[in-house]
Amino acid sequence: MQRYFIDQAYQPTVELSGEAHHHMARVMRMAVDDEVFLVFTDQTAIKAKITGIDSEKVVLTEVEKESLQRELPIDITIASGFPKGEKLELIVQKGTELGAHQFIAFPGESSVAKWDAKKQQKKQQRLNKIAQEAAEQSHRQALPIVQFASEKELIARFSDYDTVLIAYEESAKQGEQAQLVQTFQQLTAGQKLLVVFGPEGGLTPKEIELFQGAGAKLCGLGPRILRTETAPFYLLSAASFYYELQH
Amino acid sequence: MQRYFIDQAYQPTVELSGEAHHHMARVMRMAVDDEVFLVFTDQTAIKAKITGIDSEKVVLTEVEKESLQRELPIDITIASGFPKGEKLELIVQKGTELGAHQFIAFPGESSVAKWDAKKQQKKQQRLNKIAQEAAEQSHRQALPIVQFASEKELIARFSDYDTVLIAYEESAKQGEQAQLVQTFQQLTAGQKLLVVFGPEGGLTPKEIELFQGAGAKLCGLGPRILRTETAPFYLLSAASFYYELQH
Repeated sequence: MQRYFIDQAYQPTVELSGEAHHHMARVMRMAVDDEVFLVFTDQTAIKAKITGIDSEKVVLTEVEKESLQRELPIDITIASGFPKGEKLELIVQKGTELGAHQFIAFPGESSVAKWDAKKQQKKQQRLNKIAQEAAEQSHRQALPIVQFASEKELIARFSDYDTVLIAYEESAKQGEQAQLVQTFQQLTAGQKLLVVFGPEGGLTPKEIELFQGAGAKLCGLGPRILRTETAPFYLLSAASFYYELQH
Repeated sequence: MQRYFIDQAYQPTVELSGEAHHHMARVMRMAVDDEVFLVFTDQTAIKAKITGIDSEKVVLTEVEKESLQRELPIDITIASGFPKGEKLELIVQKGTELGAHQFIAFPGESSVAKWDAKKQQKKQQRLNKIAQEAAEQSHRQALPIVQFASEKELIARFSDYDTVLIAYEESAKQGEQAQLVQTFQQLTAGQKLLVVFGPEGGLTPKEIELFQGAGAKLCGLGPRILRTETAPFYLLSAASFYYELQH
């Protein structure tokens, strides 16, 4: 069943125009009595029935609330050093399916990709669209957002989080295995985790020092060397396994 | 440091011609005293030094064994119903980084992709090349292979495995959460796990019945609906977290 993220807080009856109306009326050719899922900004998700539809708006009324909790109990933000090509698109699409709460892209010192303000704005729009489609497809109850930040801005945000980790390739090479398990054991429902991933060339010693100085901890993700776009998938899948299957 | 998979069992001194020689001599322009990693078919990995190199062959001598264990303690085979486009390439590349032991591609009833014998052979070669590159890049000690099989052949292989799971979207929708944890708790080092993933359209009720009749168990991968290419990443990451970080 089709899923729509609605830009307002929960109400049992809603009247929609704009994009959602267009999609229901024109793309899906829906009619009265057709059912969809609606997800509100407060993460309430309901099954709703169309009770009225015309060329301007659609009216929907709640049938029942969605009972299954689909959001990870902790909020995870993935911060990625600008990677090459379309890798950020892959990170956002798969990361949204795997439950990320937010994405931050930042220009790492080793980043080859350079985007000027205009290109960056366009890329950000495109990435937020990808996040929305992936959130609909994977039945999310919260819509992840994608933002761009400088490294300085990223570090300034560390204090918003209960824990900040750095996924560090050298940790994997040295066999660091304890940090991720410890972090999951410590964080409880409602708490916030930020994980920083370098671009293809990795984070520089200077960046590591800066991040550590601001409170971040180095963290290994198993004994194999993961590409920059694969590492966030590991982190999010491990979090889901720990919080949603084991506990 | 460059990593090479060598098609022979471990020896402290080896003489290589063919592709590995070409890559060292021509592509990397290596010379005497340069060091590389060599991985043998028995999963022994060594750091080796070039002790002789000419236009025909290269001779390498062991410096030391690689001490870190990089292979998952259980062997995991990912069986994927033919997905669309380049998704199989993505599954094999990322699945290799994440530790898969083997890949089997099979034509699911809902598969849109149809490949004739010739196209399939070409695709298989390409996929094995992708697996090799990903294995080198991620520092694997075993080289995953990619095979194609009919559903009948796939089912005939179930008996080679200690456990066979079916990643089933409906399980996620119904909140099935216990099977994966139970499976990991039961499987011990050296045992073999096969996990079957449907194509985009999912597995049909008839396929599920066939697989279950042959001993496979339904398994959920958390509360979000994952795309066909994302689900194997979840499975492999969860296995690494469980076996390599938690235990």
